[in-house]
Amino acid sequence: MSSSVSGRTRVLGIVGHPIQQVRAPGVWTDLFDKQGIEAVCLPMQVRSADLRQFITALGSLQNLIGLIVTIPHKPAALALTDEPSPRACRAGVVNIMKRVNGGWAGDTLDGVGFVRGLQSTGQSVAGRRTLIVGCGGVGSAIALEAAAAGAAEVVVADILPERAQELAERIAETGTPSRVGPADPAAFDVVVNATPAGMRPDDPLPMPCDSLREGTLVADVVVHPEITPFLAAAQEHGCVIQPGRIMSDFQIPVMAEFFGINIGDWTPDTGPAY
Amino acid sequence: MSSSVSGRTRVLGIVGHPIQQVRAPGVWTDLFDKQGIEAVCLPMQVRSADLRQFITALGSLQNLIGLIVTIPHKPAALALTDEPSPRACRAGVVNIMKRVNGGWAGDTLDGVGFVRGLQSTGQSVAGRRTLIVGCGGVGSAIALEAAAAGAAEVVVADILPERAQELAERIAETGTPSRVGPADPAAFDVVVNATPAGMRPDDPLPMPCDSLREGTLVADVVVHPEITPFLAAAQEHGCVIQPGRIMSDFQIPVMAEFFGINIGDWTPDTGPAY
Repeated sequence: MSSSVSGRTRVLGIVGHPIQQVRAPGVWTDLFDKQGIEAVCLPMQVRSADLRQFITALGSLQNLIGLIVTIPHKPAALALTDEPSPRACRAGVVNIMKRVNGGWAGDTLDGVGFVRGLQSTGQSVAGRRTLIVGCGGVGSAIALEAAAAGAAEVVVADILPERAQELAERIAETGTPSRVGPADPAAFDVVVNATPAGMRPDDPLPMPCDSLREGTLVADVVVHPEITPFLAAAQEHGCVIQPGRIMSDFQIPVMAEFFGINIGDWTPDTGPAY
Repeated sequence: MSSSVSGRTRVLGIVGHPIQQVRAPGVWTDLFDKQGIEAVCLPMQVRSADLRQFITALGSLQNLIGLIVTIPHKPAALALTDEPSPRACRAGVVNIMKRVNGGWAGDTLDGVGFVRGLQSTGQSVAGRRTLIVGCGGVGSAIALEAAAAGAAEVVVADILPERAQELAERIAETGTPSRVGPADPAAFDVVVNATPAGMRPDDPLPMPCDSLREGTLVADVVVHPEITPFLAAAQEHGCVIQPGRIMSDFQIPVMAEFFGINIGDWTPDTGPAY
């Protein structure tokens, strides 16, 4: 390790709270090593109340490559972004930031990672009825990207009905049929858990799984454990699954492009076929 | 490297401008690896105008171990330190900081590193006439520590006469004879370059070297190159030399104590006998 940390080392930060669970530091630092890039990806644990001051000040860290933003800071990060992408504005969240013109540019790539992850295994949302459970930052990004990728219909569910309603309206504005529905996977071709349920061993399932049909594509945004109880139940019902790790890893090439980092021919490991 | 960077990795920052030349990232990260400590030492390049905001905000980085402060920020860092050590106050500089009680504690260890480096090779300033050329932060710290370590007399020289005069007075207050003198090493047992002269190939010598006497102990604060033109000239005159790397490395155990890091039985490499 020592040989690759020096006074010339640049920093890619991942800002969140808690932060211990994130995989980005290992994944990105590996990638930098492999490409001969003098950089390290480091966890930055910052409380919500300190976020504005922290990110503002990090703008003066001249060897900063940029920031990855994770739970719970994605909505607040949008408010700190001077030049958000259109899709970040629509989703209401930012998960990557970099300095531009004395301010911050930001984008949200969770939806892109979700769609690209599907493509990598020959899957697609195009023409398919899609249910997204959880309408926070990740769910919004995925729902909007699924609509952009040609989903026949995007139904959204959330424990906060107004939040779901607002997202459905934003999706409908893009031309894709959308509505608020119950968190019931029975009638769908693609079903996504975009809630944190599954991170802790005693979490309830994000939705009832009895009605899952064989062949349904079931995805989770939870990264750890890789196979959540929800995904395990889906497998038992003969569904095709996509773990959160895939969504996460398929953002990396797009993030690299955003940060101006050449990752050569690196591609995410799609892992075992599920 | 990857295996030792994760979401649990803590950060020791070194803040300066420029920063490319610093050795701390490699030295400390090696040390963390060796001790099985999940931490990385990273360069943080920050302009003077941004320092206050940057350090204030870093106070909210919860996985921060602390900061090493280097050129040109040491005097400004003192002003940002809520609980400076007495020796930091006397020297007017801080080169390490850590969070305490919602504020920052700070200390200055350049002088300690200088004295401990000498001790490691059986040298001492005790009872010896000492000349310090350069009365900035590092020179002040060394001069005061040399006085505390029993130097017979501490003579200081600087291109800014008032700065030298002020330092001589501070030293004299501690009970050690001190005065401002010319940068002439002829009459001294211990001679220290505490200016940056020698960092760049075309720098002038920090003082005339013709009058250097055999057996004089000659030290430099410049870390790169390890043997500066000044130290090379001293060697030609039969002097015993101490490169800046020694002063730098012998601060490490004291810094570790300050940061609450257990470095076990690690000791600095004293390098070849000069």
